[in-house]
Amino acid sequence: MKLSERADTATPVRMSRSARARQGAMLRTEDFAAWLAARGAAHAFRVDRIPFDELRGWSFERETGNLGHSSGRFFTVEGLRVETAADGPVTAWQQPVIRQPEVGILGILAKEFDGVLHFLMQAKMEPGNRNLLQLSPTVQATRSNYTKAHKGADVKYLEHFVRPDPERVLADALQSEHGSWFFRKSNRNMIVETRADVPLDDDFCWLTLGQIGELLLRDNVVNMDSRTVLACAPLDHDEAGALHSDTRLLSWFTGERARNRVRAECVPLARVPGWTRGRMSIDHDEGRYFRVVAVSVQAGNREVTSWTQPLFEPVGTGVTAFLTRTIGGVGHLLMHARVEAGFVKPVELGPTVQYTPGNYAHLPAGERPPFLDLVLRADRSRIRYEALHSEEGGRFINAESRYLIVEATEEEAPLDPPPGYVWVTPGQLSALVRHEHYVNVQARTLIACYHAMTAGAPVPAAG
Amino acid sequence: MKLSERADTATPVRMSRSARARQGAMLRTEDFAAWLAARGAAHAFRVDRIPFDELRGWSFERETGNLGHSSGRFFTVEGLRVETAADGPVTAWQQPVIRQPEVGILGILAKEFDGVLHFLMQAKMEPGNRNLLQLSPTVQATRSNYTKAHKGADVKYLEHFVRPDPERVLADALQSEHGSWFFRKSNRNMIVETRADVPLDDDFCWLTLGQIGELLLRDNVVNMDSRTVLACAPLDHDEAGALHSDTRLLSWFTGERARNRVRAECVPLARVPGWTRGRMSIDHDEGRYFRVVAVSVQAGNREVTSWTQPLFEPVGTGVTAFLTRTIGGVGHLLMHARVEAGFVKPVELGPTVQYTPGNYAHLPAGERPPFLDLVLRADRSRIRYEALHSEEGGRFINAESRYLIVEATEEEAPLDPPPGYVWVTPGQLSALVRHEHYVNVQARTLIACYHAMTAGAPVPAAG
Repeated sequence: MKLSERADTATPVRMSRSARARQGAMLRTEDFAAWLAARGAAHAFRVDRIPFDELRGWSFERETGNLGHSSGRFFTVEGLRVETAADGPVTAWQQPVIRQPEVGILGILAKEFDGVLHFLMQAKMEPGNRNLLQLSPTVQATRSNYTKAHKGADVKYLEHFVRPDPERVLADALQSEHGSWFFRKSNRNMIVETRADVPLDDDFCWLTLGQIGELLLRDNVVNMDSRTVLACAPLDHDEAGALHSDTRLLSWFTGERARNRVRAECVPLARVPGWTRGRMSIDHDEGRYFRVVAVSVQAGNREVTSWTQPLFEPVGTGVTAFLTRTIGGVGHLLMHARVEAGFVKPVELGPTVQYTPGNYAHLPAGERPPFLDLVLRADRSRIRYEALHSEEGGRFINAESRYLIVEATEEEAPLDPPPGYVWVTPGQLSALVRHEHYVNVQARTLIACYHAMTAGAPVPAAG
Repeated sequence: MKLSERADTATPVRMSRSARARQGAMLRTEDFAAWLAARGAAHAFRVDRIPFDELRGWSFERETGNLGHSSGRFFTVEGLRVETAADGPVTAWQQPVIRQPEVGILGILAKEFDGVLHFLMQAKMEPGNRNLLQLSPTVQATRSNYTKAHKGADVKYLEHFVRPDPERVLADALQSEHGSWFFRKSNRNMIVETRADVPLDDDFCWLTLGQIGELLLRDNVVNMDSRTVLACAPLDHDEAGALHSDTRLLSWFTGERARNRVRAECVPLARVPGWTRGRMSIDHDEGRYFRVVAVSVQAGNREVTSWTQPLFEPVGTGVTAFLTRTIGGVGHLLMHARVEAGFVKPVELGPTVQYTPGNYAHLPAGERPPFLDLVLRADRSRIRYEALHSEEGGRFINAESRYLIVEATEEEAPLDPPPGYVWVTPGQLSALVRHEHYVNVQARTLIACYHAMTAGAPVPAAG
């Protein structure tokens, strides 16, 4: 019986080769914008705000006030009651939350052309996306999707992911999504290689990692689902070491998980205090955080051509950033042990900064989130990456964040950071995202951005 | 700035050296039984069954029938309503469950004597243990323990684990416990090294991993908390490869997690159908699974000297086994993706067999659990490990399982096993137990037993 090597060392080398390929064998990078525009023009997309009572199939349950679909599928909007405590007193609040217990698939199909891995990306409309049409994974399917809850067309290329050839799976892990808006949502993030011929549908294109990296430098082109899957791509990290050994990093993380306690329970939406349901939206009484709205959608290239649905609309644009330092010649990122009420576990590693500044504008300077003002006021010369990206356009509308990677100094971000923060290398993050629920979705976006930023341009060795 | 190596390669070598040391620098292995007996004789232990109405501080809440302590701490016995589904129809049931949301510490202190790592083990009485006194970790503390909910004495050696020197942590991960009896229970499993002088308390002794391995060959000496921490010890696994690469194994596991859906919610104990509360116990109406009982305890060396508490008492002795095969010269274990209702995640890797045969005696042959009869009828020549061990004696009484490691053939356990089963190497399991909630507590016991069985005796290379 022939054994396998436990570590697959060939795939990271191939991934990194693709990351350095700023041109591919198929669609040229400079032709991408025209291609995407053509795909948009080929379909008639239209999204309109509607009052809740014009939703079709969706209604507020009389008893609980929860908003759900008559089929019992897709998702519900319910209330969430939260209590969190670390070493200090208990913090408690209630809020609306999206409950979607099923695990969906976010899958990117990979194939070599001219010896370089290319990835099959889709021009996909989602009602909440800025510009509507963004670049999505090959497959983006809820369980309802692929069990045909909506009675629409088949999801294209799904067969590569439902029962994948185990020898061709390059990455496959459950990952959480927005713990402030979802209750315990996970999706399966997969990259699967094929050597078969793949018929190319009109709305799809093959791109190298380097080409997708170029597109990640642009605002609102690569959608959230693509970014989280790309963050799971195992790249070849040539790092001489790390500030903390893996054992020490895991121990630190275990301490954060053990220290933070979260009790979160779904409660009837109608009984959530501080939020008021109107004709067009459910709003926080001080106008903070987000609102729940409804839209009607018409689309030509979705599995069904028209539908209505609720969406969450955050109030204001988020700011999501890594502080980065070169330590001992190796790039490091400052991660924050974030408590988000909807996480399956109390804590995941998030970016250094992940806030909607408007939600904190009412606070005195001393109570503002750590590092937020540093990022907001960063000199351009320190900003190594910056772009606007949308969050999941199938659940959120106008949910934009400015994603940044900002170089910091010892004075601003010391090697011995405040409690709850830790320096890690991109290679360590790559190792962690092979497992569930270590790294939150905003940090995964920034990992994809970091890879886009560094591919082909080695991190400076000084510092 | 000097960086660390990400992988700590020295610790596994030191661990394996300790595992090969069948004698230590302190207590001799052949003197252990007398030492343990002397510790037992030094204290007056007594455990008596009592009716529920003689519990002190514990009572059934009027509204819910939940059994809890007046301080609101320790744990509660509540009802659990469960629905599980994989690819087929939904299975639903209700049962009593122990709810203990706090994360405790199970910690073993390590120190080198004569260049070999020794581990500080405690002779500790727990009311549910067979023989009452077993070998426990250095520290076994619930959060209530170390925040002094019981107003007793300090937990000895706790300071090494509450704020450990990060450079001296050898293992540190949250791990689940019995998902059939606990609702989302995790403990922090830690091994921490010290170079300081450690005053040796009467109830403690220093042993090498090899000595503890010898004790694991005996019935009911090494308690569950020790076994789960020992399973986390990073040993040096000299494996030429594995049947499945790590990527493939993780993908298989992700598929199992995505496929199995579990909805488990605590409900009032008084409203759980099929279970009846009597004066002395709460019983399943067909006499299966377990009962809830109460005991009064008198002890000389616990933090407090007398108390009363509820315990779960399983009906019958469990059978818990790894099937093992040597594949391509490397030992492999057949793991089962187990769904247990109390897990935080729907699935963890369990042993090949983990059942209480009596619970299945009423089923026709075709519906009996896979591999159970194979283990029950295994010829002695195939049994590579066998011992009786108790589960957590602070929560369970007479909870004994026969733990076995049984050699299997291709006909009995094929390389391509039934759905839900997978062959993994001990080295792969060691990598997984560095992370939360991959490997269940029974499998962790068997990992410790496997290490005890193989240390110093290399696995045969043929097969």
